[in-house]
Amino acid sequence: MIEKVVINVGGQTFVTKRSTLQRYPDTKLANISETCEHFDITTEVYYFDRNPLIFQSVLDYYRTGKLHFLSNICVEQIRDELQFWEISTIDLGPCCWKYFYTVDSDLKTCNVIDKHFFQKQCFLYSSKSSLTNVKSKILNVLENPRSSTFALAWQLFYLSVVCLAIIVSVIQSFELTRGNMKEIRNVTSEEDVKERLTDHDNWIGVVTHVCNVIFTLETSLRLATCPSKFDFFRSFLNIVDIMSVFGYFAHIIVGAFPDSSEFFFIFSYALVILRGFRFFRLERFIEGLRIMLLSIKQSKKMLFLLILILLISSIIFGITMHILEMDGDFTDPTSSFYWAIITMTTIGYGDVYPKTKCGQILASVCATFGLFLLSMPIAVVANTFTDLYKRYCEHQCHLLHQKKHTLYNNDRTELIPIKY
Amino acid sequence: MIEKVVINVGGQTFVTKRSTLQRYPDTKLANISETCEHFDITTEVYYFDRNPLIFQSVLDYYRTGKLHFLSNICVEQIRDELQFWEISTIDLGPCCWKYFYTVDSDLKTCNVIDKHFFQKQCFLYSSKSSLTNVKSKILNVLENPRSSTFALAWQLFYLSVVCLAIIVSVIQSFELTRGNMKEIRNVTSEEDVKERLTDHDNWIGVVTHVCNVIFTLETSLRLATCPSKFDFFRSFLNIVDIMSVFGYFAHIIVGAFPDSSEFFFIFSYALVILRGFRFFRLERFIEGLRIMLLSIKQSKKMLFLLILILLISSIIFGITMHILEMDGDFTDPTSSFYWAIITMTTIGYGDVYPKTKCGQILASVCATFGLFLLSMPIAVVANTFTDLYKRYCEHQCHLLHQKKHTLYNNDRTELIPIKY
Amino acid sequence: MIEKVVINVGGQTFVTKRSTLQRYPDTKLANISETCEHFDITTEVYYFDRNPLIFQSVLDYYRTGKLHFLSNICVEQIRDELQFWEISTIDLGPCCWKYFYTVDSDLKTCNVIDKHFFQKQCFLYSSKSSLTNVKSKILNVLENPRSSTFALAWQLFYLSVVCLAIIVSVIQSFELTRGNMKEIRNVTSEEDVKERLTDHDNWIGVVTHVCNVIFTLETSLRLATCPSKFDFFRSFLNIVDIMSVFGYFAHIIVGAFPDSSEFFFIFSYALVILRGFRFFRLERFIEGLRIMLLSIKQSKKMLFLLILILLISSIIFGITMHILEMDGDFTDPTSSFYWAIITMTTIGYGDVYPKTKCGQILASVCATFGLFLLSMPIAVVANTFTDLYKRYCEHQCHLLHQKKHTLYNNDRTELIPIKY
Amino acid sequence: MIEKVVINVGGQTFVTKRSTLQRYPDTKLANISETCEHFDITTEVYYFDRNPLIFQSVLDYYRTGKLHFLSNICVEQIRDELQFWEISTIDLGPCCWKYFYTVDSDLKTCNVIDKHFFQKQCFLYSSKSSLTNVKSKILNVLENPRSSTFALAWQLFYLSVVCLAIIVSVIQSFELTRGNMKEIRNVTSEEDVKERLTDHDNWIGVVTHVCNVIFTLETSLRLATCPSKFDFFRSFLNIVDIMSVFGYFAHIIVGAFPDSSEFFFIFSYALVILRGFRFFRLERFIEGLRIMLLSIKQSKKMLFLLILILLISSIIFGITMHILEMDGDFTDPTSSFYWAIITMTTIGYGDVYPKTKCGQILASVCATFGLFLLSMPIAVVANTFTDLYKRYCEHQCHLLHQKKHTLYNNDRTELIPIKY
Repeated sequence: MIEKVVINVGGQTFVTKRSTLQRYPDTKLANISETCEHFDITTEVYYFDRNPLIFQSVLDYYRTGKLHFLSNICVEQIRDELQFWEISTIDLGPCCWKYFYTVDSDLKTCNVIDKHFFQKQCFLYSSKSSLTNVKSKILNVLENPRSSTFALAWQLFYLSVVCLAIIVSVIQSFELTRGNMKEIRNVTSEEDVKERLTDHDNWIGVVTHVCNVIFTLETSLRLATCPSKFDFFRSFLNIVDIMSVFGYFAHIIVGAFPDSSEFFFIFSYALVILRGFRFFRLERFIEGLRIMLLSIKQSKKMLFLLILILLISSIIFGITMHILEMDGDFTDPTSSFYWAIITMTTIGYGDVYPKTKCGQILASVCATFGLFLLSMPIAVVANTFTDLYKRYCEHQCHLLHQKKHTLYNNDRTELIPIKY
Repeated sequence: MIEKVVINVGGQTFVTKRSTLQRYPDTKLANISETCEHFDITTEVYYFDRNPLIFQSVLDYYRTGKLHFLSNICVEQIRDELQFWEISTIDLGPCCWKYFYTVDSDLKTCNVIDKHFFQKQCFLYSSKSSLTNVKSKILNVLENPRSSTFALAWQLFYLSVVCLAIIVSVIQSFELTRGNMKEIRNVTSEEDVKERLTDHDNWIGVVTHVCNVIFTLETSLRLATCPSKFDFFRSFLNIVDIMSVFGYFAHIIVGAFPDSSEFFFIFSYALVILRGFRFFRLERFIEGLRIMLLSIKQSKKMLFLLILILLISSIIFGITMHILEMDGDFTDPTSSFYWAIITMTTIGYGDVYPKTKCGQILASVCATFGLFLLSMPIAVVANTFTDLYKRYCEHQCHLLHQKKHTLYNNDRTELIPIKY
Repeated sequence: MIEKVVINVGGQTFVTKRSTLQRYPDTKLANISETCEHFDITTEVYYFDRNPLIFQSVLDYYRTGKLHFLSNICVEQIRDELQFWEISTIDLGPCCWKYFYTVDSDLKTCNVIDKHFFQKQCFLYSSKSSLTNVKSKILNVLENPRSSTFALAWQLFYLSVVCLAIIVSVIQSFELTRGNMKEIRNVTSEEDVKERLTDHDNWIGVVTHVCNVIFTLETSLRLATCPSKFDFFRSFLNIVDIMSVFGYFAHIIVGAFPDSSEFFFIFSYALVILRGFRFFRLERFIEGLRIMLLSIKQSKKMLFLLILILLISSIIFGITMHILEMDGDFTDPTSSFYWAIITMTTIGYGDVYPKTKCGQILASVCATFGLFLLSMPIAVVANTFTDLYKRYCEHQCHLLHQKKHTLYNNDRTELIPIKY
Repeated sequence: MIEKVVINVGGQTFVTKRSTLQRYPDTKLANISETCEHFDITTEVYYFDRNPLIFQSVLDYYRTGKLHFLSNICVEQIRDELQFWEISTIDLGPCCWKYFYTVDSDLKTCNVIDKHFFQKQCFLYSSKSSLTNVKSKILNVLENPRSSTFALAWQLFYLSVVCLAIIVSVIQSFELTRGNMKEIRNVTSEEDVKERLTDHDNWIGVVTHVCNVIFTLETSLRLATCPSKFDFFRSFLNIVDIMSVFGYFAHIIVGAFPDSSEFFFIFSYALVILRGFRFFRLERFIEGLRIMLLSIKQSKKMLFLLILILLISSIIFGITMHILEMDGDFTDPTSSFYWAIITMTTIGYGDVYPKTKCGQILASVCATFGLFLLSMPIAVVANTFTDLYKRYCEHQCHLLHQKKHTLYNNDRTELIPIKY
């Protein structure tokens, strides 16, 4: 006679054969016997205080060798139950991968958002000496606008300085250019140029110097107080800051030498570009911008693919066009590559364009393929951002609920892990 | 011996230990005892007349400390049940946030649509005097085309006047320009210009004046009868109306002075632009347009992000291009910024374009980054509109079902809260 | 004592109070009594042979007054059950509208696809006379390539004729133009022009005439045999066909008059355009094209919205630009409108572009708003097509399954309603 | 009296009438009797060890004639159960097609990905002779970078050679062009041209020759060792390789003849294009690129539709524009077609543009329809890629889980079918 096994899981009774359960010998159910703690001698039933819906799927696995789950049950809960039943997910059917691993990537996104948006306030050192205490306080003021009112005030001040520096830079560029740049570079003596460029003893020069002193102080303080120098130099914006500071001093030093007007000139503009990048510091206040920077980081692969596909297509279409229209605008292979990229991104300046019938047909093909190919990575990037943004909104929504609840039940505050 | 507790929820029996239930002391289940109303002494079972599927999740929370729900159950129902069991959602796992808060935002969207599309007909004053009664009637005619046949007729008439005024304005502009605008402004005396501009005693002048009288009356009536002046001035379209009216009178007054032809000229055109905005009044009839205006309002953050990212990128790319191609089209920093924006939005007029190899490479990079960066906020905006549109269709669908049902069962009309 | 009611639905037992059931007096449960057919006197239980999962939701409605359903149950099944329980959906919570009405629109799409793709083969007349029989046969050959092998052959032949006619037209246009069109029109006498235009006694002329005879015959036959003249004239492609036929005869007649070369010329080209529209007849073979035409029909509202928003924006941006840059390319209001549309659709020919700083800023704003506004209706259109395409694939997939099954079980053929 | 049938499925009891079960006579339930193995004589119950949730739907099918399933159950599992109950899916309601056939297409995608990404390492011949063994080893080195460390090294070397060859080609093109191409072709004697073109005894010539020898060897080895010549020639990239090799030898042979400079010149460039296609070999390392190529293959229909719609629209809009603006840029029908395509793809070079009012209106219409029509197939293509990419990520995720598990439980390695 076949030995039947009666199992009660969370109130629901399941009947199966012992041979079925022994199909996977390393699992919990294969090793249950009448001496284990789950066996109730009076009713001859194995009792488990687990979720019966998930156990149904587990039992189906023993019977059919195929692992499927109900898609309305939370995957995290399924994982916990599987761990209890000592079953691995390696036999999970491809039909269930979709909902099973989507949750994984959702949770990963959640963690990323939690790390970047909601856990930044605790810059703490392990040793609690007075020095590290001061360091930690300074760091919080410099890095985290939400830590205190003073930190917020400082951040607002710092960002105003950034904006001021950029505006001043742009005005300076205007002035440089308006002062007949070409004339300066070609006609007048080099001394005159430098005079003109350094002749900012007016308010613009003063503002620039003050801003740069503030930047230098802020950057050195942050570098001095950061807990891990390695993490500091891994951040793109920190490198921009440090380059700005060095660039500023290099600018002054170069300006002191007599014969360096051309060099000096390039330096001046390079500093303006670096200051432009500083605008990204706004991410400390504008969540949208921070989510964007985050999704750029997460879409690195797609950006790389976009550039790669543009490169390959531009070589193929560019060279073909070069052959077809050698007498026209496409005398130069680089112009042809440039034309292909400008066409595929649907910009079409019109400085380079085909004139023969064959060239026009190729341009049409290039345009069609451009639309077709570029839509692919762009769609993934757009999805990534939309997803991150939604997850961020949900996170914020959850914290708001938590906060409300905390204000209501003050006695349960110790349960909340993240203080907002 | 461990004290077991048997709980019957909606017909299904659950067995657990009392110690488990006391894990969360502030909840209903922690405080049940044999004296409470749910205890049946004969069977020694606690009976609750609630949903058993949700109770399964609640019990799992007591056992594992993790709160998960079945994603096929309506979140609103889960909230009601949780309130009954006195459990908060602060311990809800991140894996369940997605479906839990999606419903929240869906409901919010539903409310927004309900407010903007289906609840507008009840402009009622609290005090029921004869004056407010008249006011309410006028307001309904002016604001809500669905309130009565007369209101609909009025709205159609009003919109025809708007269209007429715009067409007339455009014709007027044509005439002004066709009359050799440049010649007028440079050669002839200022008196002649004004003569020409005010010489609309022909039909165009008459139509313009009649239209403006109608606009003035309509706007003043609406302003007089609106229940809250504050809400009136918060609406963008109302401000456009008021500015149009004032602009019209200012136009007449300015025209009366002898030496103001240039000023008068600008005024004339500014009025045409204001009239263009009046086209948005069509939203009273065209649901698509109203949904669009609504989703613009809801996507303010994304619009801001789009502008910000364009600004930052244009500064970085613009200045870099300015350095690389100073001898070409990029002598001016503003042209460079303008070029960067026109390139990143993939328009590419071709009035400003790079000529050196370096410049062409930078243009390609700028184009690629433009596609990459702008796709992100645009995707969110597109999603918002698609979502609002779908929700609107569902809402309409539901009202249609309701209406059908009401016509069928006349005796149940009192149950329907919104009359369509 | 409260009267308890025990209800067994599909094997599962539910207990509730009679007062609860009487909350909605017009429903089936409110009127059950011990004399009705569902009452089992021996066990004192009301037995219903229905789905218990849905009954759980129904019972919750009686208890809480709120109607929610499990989202994993098919809405069609819920509707059937609700009809049995005599409950209307007017109290359905907004949280459930989403999945409830999505299925409605899905089914509507399914029906549309079924009507357009899979039910076309049965052109049958109610009266079965020999004349209508012949008519029906001709119609099937002319309209439905799938009805028989001869019909397929005819369709392939017809489409080759269409393509041939278009190619010939294009060649003709080339010839007309290559023959120094301008020269003809200005220098030579009108007689010479006509000679040139009608001098197609060569192969091109012959092919054109043969093609047109075939078109005329086909169109008249279809018009003669179609069951409803009203439906015939409602189809856009049929009107194109009829206009083509009339155009062809008009062309011949006009050509017979001596002094009509200019008129004749316009006619020639108008016919080429009409022939271009005939290309859409390819939809009889290419499913993708038919789905596209169908989704254009379904997206009429969005196309209208797209045009409306382009019009309004072009008026606002166009006039503003007209004021800012009157001395530049924007002397004309129409050019300004045209510029605004070409900018907002991100084409940017570069024939009209801003030259002042203000104009460049406005162009940037216009570009940004163009991207922002146009993405909205475009996203809905893209969704509609994607949806229709997916539904079509599923439909085809289902029919394939059905077909396989029919070949296997020949004895069950009578169950299949649509023969593919 | 009606014969009732009690059925116990996986622990849950269902009661129904025998007449209901005999509705579909070919199914398992119609033919159960008291003598079959599932009947338990003591309890008079038919016992089936199957999933009860799915049986509920099966029973509903017998009762109502409509087949619906719970959407949270995996479709694969439903199929298995239906096979057991001998029920076909031909009566499945359209409301359930969506989730039923979505899984089908998901599984198909899964198989495609599995075939292209995770099953490539086992190039095995059926006969295990020493020759085929060597062949198999060579093939693995040449085709599969993941098979061994040596294979990876070879692939990296091979791709460097590809990149080097392309860079050298581009430099060569530069040189050719920089050397005043036009001058060469028109002024100097043909001998001089050839001298110039073949005068690569410098490093460029050497590199080119070495690269080509490597390509020739690699391609011949792959051709010699591939198991199926037919599959080899079906791959686009293999044909590119073979054409490159033949092109190279043809190039050398042509260069040997004295009077073939023009021909020789075209050959040189054609080879550069073929080398450009070789860049796609990068797909062996860059998964994104391979997914892209795969989704291009899967979107063939949409690419065809995109081209078709562009062709039809360009004929209609092009000819119309040709009529409207015959005196402007549109003298030629081909220019008009080209203009229409360049406008609809939103490129807008600006070399051809409308000058009259009518032409500008038509251009606006063309732009609007371009946005409207092209968004449709592009959206489907973007979806296909996003889907494939997501499925790929899930697949990789699953393999990672599997791998982890394998490292942990070494004794269960035999269960894993795909070694990563």
